[in-house]
Amino acid sequence: MTPTPIRIGLLGCGNVGAAFAALVAEQRETITARTGSVLRIDAIAVHSTAKDRGLHISPSTFTTDAASVVADPDIDLVVELIGGVEPARTLVLRALQAGKPVVTGNKELLANHGAELYAAADEAGVDLLFEAAVAGAIPLVRVLRESLVGEPIRRIMGIVNGTTNYILSQMSETGASYQNALAEAQSLGYAERDPTADVEGHDAAAKAAIIASIAYGVNVVAGDVTSEGISGISSSDIAFASRLGHVIKLLAVVEQVGKSESVEPEVAVRVHPAMLPTSHPLASVRDSFNAVFVEGGAVDDLMLYGRGAGGRATASAVLGDVVDAAINLRRGTHRSLGPLAVARLQPIDELSSAYYLSLEVTDEPGVLAKVAGVFGNHKISIRSMEQQGLGVEARLIFITHHAVERDLRATIAALGMLDCVRSVGSMLRVVGAADDEG
Amino acid sequence: MTPTPIRIGLLGCGNVGAAFAALVAEQRETITARTGSVLRIDAIAVHSTAKDRGLHISPSTFTTDAASVVADPDIDLVVELIGGVEPARTLVLRALQAGKPVVTGNKELLANHGAELYAAADEAGVDLLFEAAVAGAIPLVRVLRESLVGEPIRRIMGIVNGTTNYILSQMSETGASYQNALAEAQSLGYAERDPTADVEGHDAAAKAAIIASIAYGVNVVAGDVTSEGISGISSSDIAFASRLGHVIKLLAVVEQVGKSESVEPEVAVRVHPAMLPTSHPLASVRDSFNAVFVEGGAVDDLMLYGRGAGGRATASAVLGDVVDAAINLRRGTHRSLGPLAVARLQPIDELSSAYYLSLEVTDEPGVLAKVAGVFGNHKISIRSMEQQGLGVEARLIFITHHAVERDLRATIAALGMLDCVRSVGSMLRVVGAADDEG
Repeated sequence: MTPTPIRIGLLGCGNVGAAFAALVAEQRETITARTGSVLRIDAIAVHSTAKDRGLHISPSTFTTDAASVVADPDIDLVVELIGGVEPARTLVLRALQAGKPVVTGNKELLANHGAELYAAADEAGVDLLFEAAVAGAIPLVRVLRESLVGEPIRRIMGIVNGTTNYILSQMSETGASYQNALAEAQSLGYAERDPTADVEGHDAAAKAAIIASIAYGVNVVAGDVTSEGISGISSSDIAFASRLGHVIKLLAVVEQVGKSESVEPEVAVRVHPAMLPTSHPLASVRDSFNAVFVEGGAVDDLMLYGRGAGGRATASAVLGDVVDAAINLRRGTHRSLGPLAVARLQPIDELSSAYYLSLEVTDEPGVLAKVAGVFGNHKISIRSMEQQGLGVEARLIFITHHAVERDLRATIAALGMLDCVRSVGSMLRVVGAADDEG
Repeated sequence: MTPTPIRIGLLGCGNVGAAFAALVAEQRETITARTGSVLRIDAIAVHSTAKDRGLHISPSTFTTDAASVVADPDIDLVVELIGGVEPARTLVLRALQAGKPVVTGNKELLANHGAELYAAADEAGVDLLFEAAVAGAIPLVRVLRESLVGEPIRRIMGIVNGTTNYILSQMSETGASYQNALAEAQSLGYAERDPTADVEGHDAAAKAAIIASIAYGVNVVAGDVTSEGISGISSSDIAFASRLGHVIKLLAVVEQVGKSESVEPEVAVRVHPAMLPTSHPLASVRDSFNAVFVEGGAVDDLMLYGRGAGGRATASAVLGDVVDAAINLRRGTHRSLGPLAVARLQPIDELSSAYYLSLEVTDEPGVLAKVAGVFGNHKISIRSMEQQGLGVEARLIFITHHAVERDLRATIAALGMLDCVRSVGSMLRVVGAADDEG
């Protein structure tokens, strides 16, 4: 049987795009043998055709006109690796409307315009695949859409940002301060010169929105996600967590809230640093690795671990999607997410969790009684307390039983009013313990 | 659009079969909404129709005649959960030949007759899916066949037997002896009364054969797999491993050997206990959980973690496959593995690895020199040594640099001839360190 050529138009040829082009060349024969399709990159749209990308590809393949690649009737399938919302959104929509499957790694695009794009793909009856947009090389999207299609998912917790995981791992393993760990991440190229998008949790929030959409079939956009970053985490928080048998990780959390019988689904989607017991599988995800932990009703606990970034690793996810889209295109079929439902998003104030709280207080008799009284007034039950002397001051560390976040915030406000409380330090949610109600 | 009914014939209604039937009922609406197909279990073949399985299914659905279920023109898709080779093999072949997709969780069948069954499925142009046969709820087969279709996989290491992982975890965490940990696993229902298939590595070997077949497209059967179990692992091995920063896990290892340019592919497939650094992601897989660690050329390291057994978890993998097969059936397509190639299997003697070796020796001057001389004569280089006094005896623990197993075995034989060596204890391969050449 003569293999069917699949003529790919590649939009963008940066780190991931160039790695994808190289991988297609390396793996062409294997893929043809296994699928009967020959992948060919017939056009590559770039900003500048002058740049040498170290690829053995004819210069005539490159163009600066992305719109013409998408419109070209000789292109069967479009791979969008430009990033950002525009012009990516318009190009992807035009490709879909022209009946071309699209594979994209564009997290920002999907986290803001996913519903529009999924609907356009369904309308055209072609694939829109985006494994690389969520957790790099980790096959989360496929597993959620296919393996877990009938699974009642209770909660998903993901370490989906490699930069912050590297920083927190370094702080934990070497005792480095946040600033030093960040500087090291920057010198290694794991963090940008302006690290805001990573360290403030914006990157993870966009991924959380996409995960919520696929896991629950609901429309969640990046702006819906409550997010807190890691810039307020101190070495002493890490040290206390460790003494209590915990590590601190930046988590993207997506969970179903309330009864599943309610008319409108209710989900909670948030990003924040959290304390996890060291025995939890996510606790051992070190360095810049990512991992996603799924708590299902039938499947029980499932974790996927791997590289969340990096040119070749991300390109491998793009390639897996391209092979799928190529197979489906030849057979005239596609995978559909179905229309996304409107969901109620749980405000963070309604969250029920255990909490870690550190306070700096004056070291004098009666302080603990006053502080404990404030917790009691807000009906927050303390599970454990530790005190550490600091000369004239002392640090108090509390872990609470499950409480509602609104009450905890009220407690923090009231504690801040006490004369004996010098400052309220970090507040961290404690998750993943055996008694964690989710 | 009216949903299309998919009429399922279920063969076998034990633990997994009953959980599958319950899951189909629970998740029917979700699956219909997402796929447009209504899953219906129209026939269930069992040994005895008298048994109450706690399912809300009409008694007329049950039959003792499995062959008639397979032959019934009103059955669209067959789920085989009988286990064992016959009659499962004949029933699966007949179903495929009748153009019915088959989903099976039968490890023994696939590890012995996989090539015949995959060929029959391709011949008929229908799906043969078997996620549940390899690592229960872990979506390994899907990820290997789809996400990693173009990936040059260097090595796969799996903890694919929950019983032995439970026993080793207990020995490691509580200091229990092998016998006590086994007895506890039996009392919890994690181990059979006759635990041979688990503890001697036979179950893991069958899974390793299937993994090798999918990962490399080669025909490997259970009998091809060299396997060693865990019954020789002592508390002192675990304690030494721990002092050296390692844990002991039973691993199924599948790897590509030699140059990929050779005409006939060469793979190594084996099961044995191994020492892993505690920082390795597989080291933190505790209790009866399973995990599979994939080392790829582009994807880098990828790990999938979850439940390798249990009725509902395994049934969730069956359900994921059934949904896939239903979608493909409606569209007249199927997934193919392609014909399996013949591979050269590397004999264990040719393995290159680092090794752990424990010796009991007489505690007298000059012993270490004699022992070290034997290592040197066989050109085995020692990376580290520890000595522990036992009164008149002493225990020597060695970790070698990478060596060829043939040389290590010759060394062990020669050490056994020394008067000063009372006994040669465990020999364990050490894998997963930064300098592990794979």
